[in-house]
Amino acid sequence: MATPQFKQLRHSYGFDDVAIVPGDVTINPDQTNIDFKVEGFTFSIPVIASAMDAVTDVNFAILMSKLGGLAVLNLEGLQTRYDNPQAILSQIAQASDAEITPLLQKVYSQPIKENLIAERIQAIKKVGAVCAVSVAPANTKRFAPIAAEAKADIFIVQSTVTSARHISKSYRGLIFSELRKSIPMPIIVGNCVSYSACLELMRTGIAGVLVGVGPGAACTTREVLGVGVPQITATMDCAAARDEYQRESGKYVPIITDGGFRKGGHLCKAFAAGADAVMIGSILAQAKEAPGLGYHWGMSHPHPAHPRRTRIKVGTTGSREQILIGPASVTDGSQNLVGAVRTALGICGVRTIQEMHKVEMVVAPSITTEGKWWQLSSH
Amino acid sequence: MATPQFKQLRHSYGFDDVAIVPGDVTINPDQTNIDFKVEGFTFSIPVIASAMDAVTDVNFAILMSKLGGLAVLNLEGLQTRYDNPQAILSQIAQASDAEITPLLQKVYSQPIKENLIAERIQAIKKVGAVCAVSVAPANTKRFAPIAAEAKADIFIVQSTVTSARHISKSYRGLIFSELRKSIPMPIIVGNCVSYSACLELMRTGIAGVLVGVGPGAACTTREVLGVGVPQITATMDCAAARDEYQRESGKYVPIITDGGFRKGGHLCKAFAAGADAVMIGSILAQAKEAPGLGYHWGMSHPHPAHPRRTRIKVGTTGSREQILIGPASVTDGSQNLVGAVRTALGICGVRTIQEMHKVEMVVAPSITTEGKWWQLSSH
Amino acid sequence: MATPQFKQLRHSYGFDDVAIVPGDVTINPDQTNIDFKVEGFTFSIPVIASAMDAVTDVNFAILMSKLGGLAVLNLEGLQTRYDNPQAILSQIAQASDAEITPLLQKVYSQPIKENLIAERIQAIKKVGAVCAVSVAPANTKRFAPIAAEAKADIFIVQSTVTSARHISKSYRGLIFSELRKSIPMPIIVGNCVSYSACLELMRTGIAGVLVGVGPGAACTTREVLGVGVPQITATMDCAAARDEYQRESGKYVPIITDGGFRKGGHLCKAFAAGADAVMIGSILAQAKEAPGLGYHWGMSHPHPAHPRRTRIKVGTTGSREQILIGPASVTDGSQNLVGAVRTALGICGVRTIQEMHKVEMVVAPSITTEGKWWQLSSH
Amino acid sequence: MATPQFKQLRHSYGFDDVAIVPGDVTINPDQTNIDFKVEGFTFSIPVIASAMDAVTDVNFAILMSKLGGLAVLNLEGLQTRYDNPQAILSQIAQASDAEITPLLQKVYSQPIKENLIAERIQAIKKVGAVCAVSVAPANTKRFAPIAAEAKADIFIVQSTVTSARHISKSYRGLIFSELRKSIPMPIIVGNCVSYSACLELMRTGIAGVLVGVGPGAACTTREVLGVGVPQITATMDCAAARDEYQRESGKYVPIITDGGFRKGGHLCKAFAAGADAVMIGSILAQAKEAPGLGYHWGMSHPHPAHPRRTRIKVGTTGSREQILIGPASVTDGSQNLVGAVRTALGICGVRTIQEMHKVEMVVAPSITTEGKWWQLSSH
Repeated sequence: MATPQFKQLRHSYGFDDVAIVPGDVTINPDQTNIDFKVEGFTFSIPVIASAMDAVTDVNFAILMSKLGGLAVLNLEGLQTRYDNPQAILSQIAQASDAEITPLLQKVYSQPIKENLIAERIQAIKKVGAVCAVSVAPANTKRFAPIAAEAKADIFIVQSTVTSARHISKSYRGLIFSELRKSIPMPIIVGNCVSYSACLELMRTGIAGVLVGVGPGAACTTREVLGVGVPQITATMDCAAARDEYQRESGKYVPIITDGGFRKGGHLCKAFAAGADAVMIGSILAQAKEAPGLGYHWGMSHPHPAHPRRTRIKVGTTGSREQILIGPASVTDGSQNLVGAVRTALGICGVRTIQEMHKVEMVVAPSITTEGKWWQLSSH
Repeated sequence: MATPQFKQLRHSYGFDDVAIVPGDVTINPDQTNIDFKVEGFTFSIPVIASAMDAVTDVNFAILMSKLGGLAVLNLEGLQTRYDNPQAILSQIAQASDAEITPLLQKVYSQPIKENLIAERIQAIKKVGAVCAVSVAPANTKRFAPIAAEAKADIFIVQSTVTSARHISKSYRGLIFSELRKSIPMPIIVGNCVSYSACLELMRTGIAGVLVGVGPGAACTTREVLGVGVPQITATMDCAAARDEYQRESGKYVPIITDGGFRKGGHLCKAFAAGADAVMIGSILAQAKEAPGLGYHWGMSHPHPAHPRRTRIKVGTTGSREQILIGPASVTDGSQNLVGAVRTALGICGVRTIQEMHKVEMVVAPSITTEGKWWQLSSH
Repeated sequence: MATPQFKQLRHSYGFDDVAIVPGDVTINPDQTNIDFKVEGFTFSIPVIASAMDAVTDVNFAILMSKLGGLAVLNLEGLQTRYDNPQAILSQIAQASDAEITPLLQKVYSQPIKENLIAERIQAIKKVGAVCAVSVAPANTKRFAPIAAEAKADIFIVQSTVTSARHISKSYRGLIFSELRKSIPMPIIVGNCVSYSACLELMRTGIAGVLVGVGPGAACTTREVLGVGVPQITATMDCAAARDEYQRESGKYVPIITDGGFRKGGHLCKAFAAGADAVMIGSILAQAKEAPGLGYHWGMSHPHPAHPRRTRIKVGTTGSREQILIGPASVTDGSQNLVGAVRTALGICGVRTIQEMHKVEMVVAPSITTEGKWWQLSSH
Repeated sequence: MATPQFKQLRHSYGFDDVAIVPGDVTINPDQTNIDFKVEGFTFSIPVIASAMDAVTDVNFAILMSKLGGLAVLNLEGLQTRYDNPQAILSQIAQASDAEITPLLQKVYSQPIKENLIAERIQAIKKVGAVCAVSVAPANTKRFAPIAAEAKADIFIVQSTVTSARHISKSYRGLIFSELRKSIPMPIIVGNCVSYSACLELMRTGIAGVLVGVGPGAACTTREVLGVGVPQITATMDCAAARDEYQRESGKYVPIITDGGFRKGGHLCKAFAAGADAVMIGSILAQAKEAPGLGYHWGMSHPHPAHPRRTRIKVGTTGSREQILIGPASVTDGSQNLVGAVRTALGICGVRTIQEMHKVEMVVAPSITTEGKWWQLSSH
């Protein structure tokens, strides 16, 4: 009998499956530099706020830029459908559980106003903040020129899974190399999770790649479609693509791990896995300045194979600044994310995010539900 | 001392242990073709309803055929024991928990009426639907000629574990190569889970193989007998047998993964593991048209080593059409199964089920019970 | 820098970590032969009742022998300390939780009466039943001659871990090769879990080996001492030792997997791992004829490093015969253990326990707590 | 396409992921010698009490020394900030949950009094006990001469992660080879977890290394920073460094596994992994003589990236002597730790801790939450 040729499966890992090994040298956290650079822009903190209506509006984009990071305004959300999105956000926060699904369906069925796209971008730009905007691939050709005209700084094309080549009978697929020539802004594209998909995206000449499909074990994409790769493996594989692309082209295209973060340790592990920056949504929706007013909801377009939008109460735990820069007022690792990253770099004895890519990680048993009193530290 | 020769154990995986890696190309779901072919029959959706009394009766077999799939009528269930099975189904649904075990024992101890076999088959056939029927190996010689006479289209021989060679002192084992010659219908046989057992079954000349013994970690066969292989590994191994059999014979014999499905993601993973079609029971028992009226029960013959029949309340979540074709009214992935399969193919950049067999999967950490708010997607 | 020489750890597996792969052939269960042989004795069922006071007394030893199995009378338990042990067993069953610990300490501090050893053995022998007795290593020299004199059939020396060589300053270690010459009965020794320890025990000329230290993930030995090997790995390793010993000596010394069993599937897996017989306690303590009257407690001698005795309510689920031979009245796999073993052999296509040693097993995901309705079988 | 160069991850294991394999020989526990030696000092039990205010004060340091072990006085805790620390300890124990955080912040903000350092050391020394003291790296240059002057016996430099080379702009890093020349005491340094970091620390000429960063899956360092290695792997790797250092230098530098212990089995496994001694805190805080009066809290310095101090109620389970030497009054393995270690050595057939380093361990399935009645032992 011939040797059976069974399909082979690689093992993959998420944030809670791994741990970072400290270094042979230690460095004071204040000696670290955690700059994130993307095609001409340098951010002093490598954290990007998601393009979600409960997370990013004009005010927050400005605040995030001041703190040294970046926020992404979703050009297909409430901000560009309503002159006064605050009123809609209040309605969402005040709706009962029974009212919320039809309300969300209704408010997102309003048409996008092109003049509001320009208005929102200009409101961010006029105070000197960096302005990043996002659209889905299908609307890119329509909105990219408007964003370019309004002088947005960074243009993001994002869907659950975006590939360099999309095959459709209803419209011609988006060609990123053509898009790149048609607008003057750096283009970031996502999401992807594999070495080859990431490498192919980079070869189109884009400025950055968003990494993450089905992050976290329980996410909808994995439940409904079975598709997804846990974020540590996805980040490691796309980092390998980035390094390969640098070898072949001489160009360093950063990768941004997007999704699944719940605490500082997760950010540190993403950087150790190879991320250049992280995109976070839910943790920031817990800020008292968040447009979501203590609630959060997904931005996916309704799709017959996808569940509908759900609103979730995330609560309010502190200010945006506390969450990003500290001091922490909670002990679960969801605040002072930047301090955690700097401290982890110091403990690993590295000075930059790129050096952090090389530190050792181990697969560690997942978190138990046993009590924690024996974990107190004497030092 | 000699080197100890320890028994070696391979690792095996179930639906919740793996995840599908998206492709380098993406395709619009409407560009996919998910046909399932078995010896002269082509079904436009690769979904088969189980031969269980709570799932398939004449009406449903017709409905399933109209939707493009297939349903299997169990020739040893209530439909062939009672002129009016609806009355018995109502009794089962209305029985109290205390009454149910003796009631099930009683209703299944009625003799099978051969005239009803013909009647049920003809009722399905007369409206132009495809009719598949199933019997246990021990009754195959008795019922196969009746089913053939009544012009059933597809004949299924199914037990917990069916092998090409069964050794018994009380009756001569069923020889599938002989059966194949004696009846004009394609024969599908199951269940099996290993490469060698599947290959041996295929070599008898049958038209298809059902895959799955003890699917799911908590199933009775695994509890009581310790026997079973998780469905992803079982499917991958039998797919390897199918491919080997094609190499040696030139004939492509499809495999049908049977059992353990709870949501769309599970179907997508079965196809990525190598299934040509899937057989589902419990999800369909939740349909408002289901004969089980919101209840479900196993069809195993009472056996001293097996637990007795148990009735379980599954509830009613939507119409058969919603469950199969959508739109989904629930968010747990148990509806619009076909849409999920098409979307997964699109995300993987493949056009057919057979191309789906080649997509990459990873072993991913199993589903956690942690909250889900950080899983909301911006895209 | 030299390559670090890290300590290597093998993976080990327990009953719930593995599953048996069905065979390429199937056999009717009534065609199987599950005889267990140990030095001149043949038992028609390969099940031995533990030497525990809640499990085995004279009556049960007789019953077990009639059913074709074997029960072991503990010569250091209540049966040999009290003329009327039933009275003590009643007290234990009726004691409150507050009273039980001092009561157990008190009743086991009574001296062992040598005349009762002979009396109990003769009571079993006079009705023609096979009589097996057990003692701890430290008392072997004292009680072995008494058991021999009373014509016990099989002599078992058992402690948590027993090795071929024990080093002590207070007494000269037990030499099994000498013991074997001094008494006419077959000697079974345990417990051990590793290849080398098992092989060394076999080389002393004993008739059988008990396998199992710290069976089950939560057992006391593993909690308090960190010592133990899960039963599937322990059985596979000791089976390798048995096979090696047969190669070097021509003698087949059976191994008996002892401990951790909760249901039929566990027995089937032990045999697939290489066991010749299984020793069960707790499942049998649930019988209505059990001396423990619905309670169960450990027999370990109090030891400063061990927790004290604890009484546990196991309840009463059926008769001994139901538990062993069926028919089952419960659906959790804890009844009709013998039927489960025969059915598993049939599904694997093997006729004997020794052929069962060669069937394939896989590492399978551990049992989940998710609902079970999707596990119902159509066949 | 070039072969992708993915980052590689080793697997790591904690106490509950492994089990010890019994030996081929067994030894009576009273034949074992569990001495722990560190540069001229010999302790008859290899257990060190942590430098935590809820665990070690002058009285306990004396008691621990009498029992044959060692306790470490934290020179930056309450004992050196207050003339009467008992009053503060009472306040902490009596504070309400609302009061505790500000209270802990307040009491630890009092300055350290250098005269109290000398006083505490002399109080321990004057009764003939061995005195070990600890400081953080940043305060080492200031407090080391005072401890030396007061004739402390052993000097410990401890922080979450301590490396041989620390880079800081605010102060010149501590050079252990210089420190060693400046004070006459043996120096123990920690914590570290990797082969290379441990080896580099040993090459500075220190007397011992503390092993453990983020022990336990749920510890704060792993949550907030993502940094840590489970203790079995950390101990095995540092043991490999110790053995390598002995090969290159001829000097045996012991390693002390610190943190994460909850029961006797954990200690036994640490020794089997290669530890020469263990440092425990929380289990000892449960003693009725503990300064914490049934409470326990971490000693970490407040840090923007770290959660603040939390007080946890651990309760009081027995005397220090019961916990260390027995007899045990509880059944969870948290008492008679020394008896457990001796018994484990005996079961493994080894006489010393260093022989214990060589016993086999296996990766074993983690502890389940299933009931335990089937775990009772007949022997």
